[in-house]
Amino acid sequence: MNVDAQSHVVYGEDFSPGDRTELGNYTISADEIVAFARQWDPQFFHVDEERAQTEGYFGGLIASGIQTLGIFQRLTVDSRDRHWDVIGGAGIEGLQFRKPVRPGDTLTGSTVVKYVKLQPERGRARVDYAGELINQHGERVLALTMSAYIGMRSQ
Amino acid sequence: MNVDAQSHVVYGEDFSPGDRTELGNYTISADEIVAFARQWDPQFFHVDEERAQTEGYFGGLIASGIQTLGIFQRLTVDSRDRHWDVIGGAGIEGLQFRKPVRPGDTLTGSTVVKYVKLQPERGRARVDYAGELINQHGERVLALTMSAYIGMRSQ
Repeated sequence: MNVDAQSHVVYGEDFSPGDRTELGNYTISADEIVAFARQWDPQFFHVDEERAQTEGYFGGLIASGIQTLGIFQRLTVDSRDRHWDVIGGAGIEGLQFRKPVRPGDTLTGSTVVKYVKLQPERGRARVDYAGELINQHGERVLALTMSAYIGMRSQ
Repeated sequence: MNVDAQSHVVYGEDFSPGDRTELGNYTISADEIVAFARQWDPQFFHVDEERAQTEGYFGGLIASGIQTLGIFQRLTVDSRDRHWDVIGGAGIEGLQFRKPVRPGDTLTGSTVVKYVKLQPERGRARVDYAGELINQHGERVLALTMSAYIGMRSQ
């Protein structure tokens, strides 16, 4: 990322394809899995440990994929060492839940910028970045490409 | 959906392209927006009402797109009038956050089955369905295609 040393803010012009960011990691607990799923995805294999063990296809509790996406997003936001002039998310392509996420799993994330389109007439850039989460066994549990609009400096 | 009257469970064979389901609606509060975003998407325009009004691009608090996806998923699960033999979600394509979701918005959902591929050798079907959420002004705020694996009856 090409950031003016004086600037405390990251703008659309500061992104280039190939920019890679390590996001750090997050360890998810059974309680967090159940609490999230009770509210947003109350399927038994996300909320009922006993039924998940006896009736679920994965032999135990697994996290909602939407929570796994939340972990990715949380790591992404926390990894920013200065403010990004984010306008908002535009969408997500190719979101894959590749392996189940289980209680106690530690997920480590990274992103790579894939595409930057400056739209100076609209005062913004569209930035697409590929992201992934890898568990403690080296398995990729989440893959996606996220698109966001970021404000431009030169307006 | 073609469901055996005796069956209390919905299997992969029971889905057909064109099946449409109305999901009902969900009204989101400012407190819910902030609580979700503090945990999973702590950008200021999701968690800080005052800064969102003065510095945000939308003139006020807006929900994390991941929470909007959670609302869609919650409505989807709640709309099932009998148990679906869900193995797990496979992924999401073409997820678009088309309009901001604001405190007090009421989102109404629907899904339409787009594609069913029976995989009897694996005891499952892959079911892809398009989904959307519309706000109280008739604007589409979320669009996506979700893929899930559903167990098959005949094994």
